[in-house]
Amino acid sequence: MRFGPEILRQADVLAGFSEDPPGITRTYLTPQHRQAGDYLLGLMREAGMDAGYDALGNVVGRYAAARPGAGTVMTGSHMDSVRNAGRYDGLFGILTAIACVRDLHRRGKRLPFDFEVVAFGDEEGVRFGVTLIGSKAMGGSFDPAWLDAKDADGTTLREALAAFGGDPEGWRSLDRRGRGVVAYVESHIEQGPVLLNEGLPVGVVTAIAGGARVRVAVTGLAGHAGTVPMGSRRDALAAAAEMVLAVERIASAPGAGGAALVGTVGKLEARPGAINVIPQDVAFTVDLRSGDDAARRRATGEMREAFEAIARSRGVAVSFDVFYELAAAPCDASLQEALAASIARQGLPVRRLPSGAGHDAMVFPPVCPIAMLFARCGAGGISHHPDETMTAADAEVATAVFLDFLETWTPGPLPTRT
Amino acid sequence: MRFGPEILRQADVLAGFSEDPPGITRTYLTPQHRQAGDYLLGLMREAGMDAGYDALGNVVGRYAAARPGAGTVMTGSHMDSVRNAGRYDGLFGILTAIACVRDLHRRGKRLPFDFEVVAFGDEEGVRFGVTLIGSKAMGGSFDPAWLDAKDADGTTLREALAAFGGDPEGWRSLDRRGRGVVAYVESHIEQGPVLLNEGLPVGVVTAIAGGARVRVAVTGLAGHAGTVPMGSRRDALAAAAEMVLAVERIASAPGAGGAALVGTVGKLEARPGAINVIPQDVAFTVDLRSGDDAARRRATGEMREAFEAIARSRGVAVSFDVFYELAAAPCDASLQEALAASIARQGLPVRRLPSGAGHDAMVFPPVCPIAMLFARCGAGGISHHPDETMTAADAEVATAVFLDFLETWTPGPLPTRT
Repeated sequence: MRFGPEILRQADVLAGFSEDPPGITRTYLTPQHRQAGDYLLGLMREAGMDAGYDALGNVVGRYAAARPGAGTVMTGSHMDSVRNAGRYDGLFGILTAIACVRDLHRRGKRLPFDFEVVAFGDEEGVRFGVTLIGSKAMGGSFDPAWLDAKDADGTTLREALAAFGGDPEGWRSLDRRGRGVVAYVESHIEQGPVLLNEGLPVGVVTAIAGGARVRVAVTGLAGHAGTVPMGSRRDALAAAAEMVLAVERIASAPGAGGAALVGTVGKLEARPGAINVIPQDVAFTVDLRSGDDAARRRATGEMREAFEAIARSRGVAVSFDVFYELAAAPCDASLQEALAASIARQGLPVRRLPSGAGHDAMVFPPVCPIAMLFARCGAGGISHHPDETMTAADAEVATAVFLDFLETWTPGPLPTRT
Repeated sequence: MRFGPEILRQADVLAGFSEDPPGITRTYLTPQHRQAGDYLLGLMREAGMDAGYDALGNVVGRYAAARPGAGTVMTGSHMDSVRNAGRYDGLFGILTAIACVRDLHRRGKRLPFDFEVVAFGDEEGVRFGVTLIGSKAMGGSFDPAWLDAKDADGTTLREALAAFGGDPEGWRSLDRRGRGVVAYVESHIEQGPVLLNEGLPVGVVTAIAGGARVRVAVTGLAGHAGTVPMGSRRDALAAAAEMVLAVERIASAPGAGGAALVGTVGKLEARPGAINVIPQDVAFTVDLRSGDDAARRRATGEMREAFEAIARSRGVAVSFDVFYELAAAPCDASLQEALAASIARQGLPVRRLPSGAGHDAMVFPPVCPIAMLFARCGAGGISHHPDETMTAADAEVATAVFLDFLETWTPGPLPTRT
């Protein structure tokens, strides 16, 4: 294998840059961010790229085109992590791209576009509660109010950036809209079981799912578990149980146009929570995602109606608060075709699948067409967890596909600079 | 009204003997127990009874029979409370009995049996974690190991009894088995909504429900809320939701012989409990009660089977641990008939209903036949709560019924002393 074992070895090195070893936690603008960034900077330079930190602590490597004045193809992913994370989320997308450049450089081959690899400093949003800080600056959706966001110790993003050696005002210069970027193509582990279950090492992402998050509160009437007959109850937990199953049913129904939906009740609390008291209050959350915004909105509406019908029939009250919504980011059809062709040239079937998780790519549509390549996860598809895993063989295949894409894809005419 | 307003006034006085005024909390062997006991002792003596504390801090009043050597009819209820309690639970049963004696005494009327009214020091079990301490001593089921039970401050029951002026070894002398007790008849507020919903002031208890308590643990597989397709999930919360509804369904099904069952999931916890993570582990409890032990056991078995079928169909694991079981105490048929006749003589329809809650009466079957009279609760039937309420009119009716019972019921021949 040319790439796989080395990528996994590099991921092992990066796993050591952690705030709580032997677990992996690496948040934005920490010494561990610096360690990971310096290591990746070194890999990029060794691979033949010009590389450096930008104003927000992202590490950006550039492999110049065969001819000056060409468009830019970007790739990248994040080097930060959730708490107690796995070692491939984000980092695989950076390492596979560096491996491609190293191979091209070794062969003395230049591409018909500048190729940029970005290691984003923050995607997960663990430290400041704001996600995708690095990529949003490039996508033109950085909000300067975030500079005043504080971490758990009361340090602002502005202060942390200055201490890191970044430039709190430098985000303005990172906006890549109208700067000749012709495509953003990100590799990432799937973080789910679809490819694993189908025995496929890679897949082409059709869209990065949009999402809605809902807070639901059910209010019934408490009572003695022994003295209130079943027919006289207004049990908030029994009502919530019906609602949980309604979420599952609605999210499982085949959507119009085959749109994949997922719906999850991840958090549920029942009060007063005593063994011999009928629950009076239940609060739960719904996380709903789809690559198709219309299908997601339709499902959200169906859930609200179903909850209200359940509440009416049980004499309980229900509130339904959609407190967060994010639009889906569809992947570009011609980039999908190009990735599919590269997969087919490896002799593999082409599986197209949506990404239920969010990724840096999702904020790039204002800049350029986007696409994503998924690599198979092991261990049931688990991610954001120490059990997250991938094989050297899959890293090899995914890198070969991405390299083939880079060597065969030709950008159309450059967009006019604005 | 002859009785009602006075009983409610006395309950108001007793509500002032609280460990956390203005809330009502009165636990065993505290200064507030002493205050309530002294007040009830005074009421008993005023009413014409011989009264005193026994070795366990119960207050016992005796209204001697017309002729010596007669059998004894006992009544009573508890003067302790749960935390933040209502003012009628337990106390109503004591006050209504004292009111009956006061009326009999005023009229110079003696009964064909000795009549004993007991204010039990502990029924709720709040302080030492052991319930029904007072009545169990009389029922012959006091366990001397309880003397070493400790309260939250580390004081043992033995020490607390000595400090109260009781006798830790005196429980042996309280056992009333084979001591000529011919009936134990307790009045109590219903602590539920059945009489309230049917517009009836009183009812005859058919049985004090037995119960089972079950701990259930469901183990699925955590996963990212966005990346695991609905069909690939092993969601512990969705499985638990189906089980909650199975509890409701099985407890609501008409039992053989019309046995009333109630089943409650009062406590449910889902982990990891994050909005964007599929729940891996859910723990919940089931509280199941019935006046018919066979029906309860049948329902417990049906629930286990239903849970296992749900778990199988969803690929999750389930454990089912029945950690507590208590047999039902059926009420004596002829005592029920006598109470029913007394209700009918008040011109009221006779409603028979099981008691879902436990009461002091339930430990007396080894001593004598038992019966209970329920009085209607207001406020939706709520109890163990400051909103617990009853009307003077209902206290009046219930007292009139109990007095009629005392004046009309005739014991059969005395059982032989053992």
